Amino acid sequence: MSHTPKFAVFGGGSWATAIVKMLCETQQEVCWYMRSTYALEHIKKQQHNPNYLSSVEFNLKQLKLSNNINETASCADYLIFVIPSAFLHQELDKLTVSLEEKVVFSAIKGIVPETSLIVGDHFNTFYKVPFNNIGVISGPCHAEEVALERLSYLTIASADEEKAKIVADALSSDYIKCTLSDDVLGTEYAAMLKNIYAVAAGIAHGLGYGDNFQSVLMSNAIREMKKYVKKVHKMKRDINDSAYLGDLLVTGYSVFSRNRLFGNMIGKGYTVKSAQLEMSMVAEGYYATKSAYLLNQQKGKKKAKTPIINAVYEILYENKDPKKTIKKLTEKLN
Amino acid sequence: MSHTPKFAVFGGGSWATAIVKMLCETQQEVCWYMRSTYALEHIKKQQHNPNYLSSVEFNLKQLKLSNNINETASCADYLIFVIPSAFLHQELDKLTVSLEEKVVFSAIKGIVPETSLIVGDHFNTFYKVPFNNIGVISGPCHAEEVALERLSYLTIASADEEKAKIVADALSSDYIKCTLSDDVLGTEYAAMLKNIYAVAAGIAHGLGYGDNFQSVLMSNAIREMKKYVKKVHKMKRDINDSAYLGDLLVTGYSVFSRNRLFGNMIGKGYTVKSAQLEMSMVAEGYYATKSAYLLNQQKGKKKAKTPIINAVYEILYENKDPKKTIKKLTEKLN
Repeated sequence: MSHTPKFAVFGGGSWATAIVKMLCETQQEVCWYMRSTYALEHIKKQQHNPNYLSSVEFNLKQLKLSNNINETASCADYLIFVIPSAFLHQELDKLTVSLEEKVVFSAIKGIVPETSLIVGDHFNTFYKVPFNNIGVISGPCHAEEVALERLSYLTIASADEEKAKIVADALSSDYIKCTLSDDVLGTEYAAMLKNIYAVAAGIAHGLGYGDNFQSVLMSNAIREMKKYVKKVHKMKRDINDSAYLGDLLVTGYSVFSRNRLFGNMIGKGYTVKSAQLEMSMVAEGYYATKSAYLLNQQKGKKKAKTPIINAVYEILYENKDPKKTIKKLTEKLN
Repeated sequence: MSHTPKFAVFGGGSWATAIVKMLCETQQEVCWYMRSTYALEHIKKQQHNPNYLSSVEFNLKQLKLSNNINETASCADYLIFVIPSAFLHQELDKLTVSLEEKVVFSAIKGIVPETSLIVGDHFNTFYKVPFNNIGVISGPCHAEEVALERLSYLTIASADEEKAKIVADALSSDYIKCTLSDDVLGTEYAAMLKNIYAVAAGIAHGLGYGDNFQSVLMSNAIREMKKYVKKVHKMKRDINDSAYLGDLLVTGYSVFSRNRLFGNMIGKGYTVKSAQLEMSMVAEGYYATKSAYLLNQQKGKKKAKTPIINAVYEILYENKDPKKTIKKLTEKLN
């Protein structure tokens, strides 16, 4: 593209709202798709998202709002998807606009359940987006702190450094610093795995384990993540960079994390179903656990040693007793 | 020694009290020295330390209490020192009993200010304890959670694995798991450095930085610690082991940490002096900052890149403005 690229954001949740806010600091116009007509109309009248980060006031002149995914996809060159992975498939089903010429960045944490693919692979396989046009926007970043304009660091990963730089420039501001990375796969998997570790942290907390154990759990989790990501995509990376360790910590230590909350309820004795009903939302770590576990079990490949993921899988999918399972896990940690 | 070794603990604080509690789970008798006659008499009458972990009830038959450091030193083969590093020198001045035949383990975090040596080196240089008789007891572990018998992991480091194992066995119980290590120096330095990073976390929090920044700070801190410890003592180690990363996290994320609290007050505008007066206790990170900074500046050695330690040093010792100094630091992190 020779013209200045235009950005579109897909999703109406808190992270989508935060990304639109970041883009509004640097862009004349941002195209924004969300499913909910109610939320759209509310934004048009009240200048803020009624459901998420409602303290963030938008300048309507900067927004091109739509609840037609094709309209928004046509409007921009850089498409940023921020739809929960569990809903991504059904949303993309409505797409008739081709993505072959688009640059697609994912700010989604998780695996598309219907295809068991991470988001980048999903776009490549089903929408013919070349890998050079694919990227990832990763934390460590709570959307709530973006709303408060508290200094936050993002990692922008793409095989094509120039495109990563364009996205980084569009998101950077007084309170957002972006680091570039060429580790798309590692960043995506790390973002997915950290949700599993947050569930584990929640379960342990719910069972009465304290801060001493939490620090041991996180220290084991980052070593486990290193092995897992190395198995999936071997390359030179420092697992202690913010995109991996930072992202793990911001989620694993957050009392607001949905994944940690979900785990906490499991630890306190809720069944998976009742915890999900009670929360009335999806904890992405729930799906991530199954995907990560099964991927690691695939035949013909050497398994990564993942005692934490295995324990969470046994509790969530094999109906194992949380107390006994975590006790067994404690013997494997150090 | 052919007989079963006997243990003595020196110190009356919360960590000393926690270690005595751990030893009482496995030992018939534990010798315990503390300076305060008041606390000693209270324990003798009420079975608990009046000042720290007062919920922990001791069986007096197991304790050989004394406020005579030489009596306690004579009583045992394994001497565990848990006196804050700032007071160690003056306490050891009272020693007339030779330590040359003793095994000395340090559960002290920090550097002896009078000699600028870490505790192991201090005992070796001034008390002729051979390095093979020296060891370190390290976290990640809040004493308060030991009192609650919450599962905690310790790292026991010594050049002599057999001695480390003896200490580990004596401390292990239902709620304490010990890992052995041969990295005495690395473990000691890591335990010292983490207090500086906790001060940094506190300063940032006091200035209004949030959880997103905290995770980036911790992710940079562990990378900085890795470089620093490598410079001091190069050996094969995984910096993400619990003794290093776990210990950093349990302190850096603790709202109860004295070091974090001290930093928080500095960030909120207290001077160093007024923060120390207000807290009426010593934040070990204060001394550690100076020692670590100066050690890194020593001539003839390649400096480790330590932007976080440098920033804390500038704020605490060069009277630099916390807000500007941390802002400058944020440009160096990623």
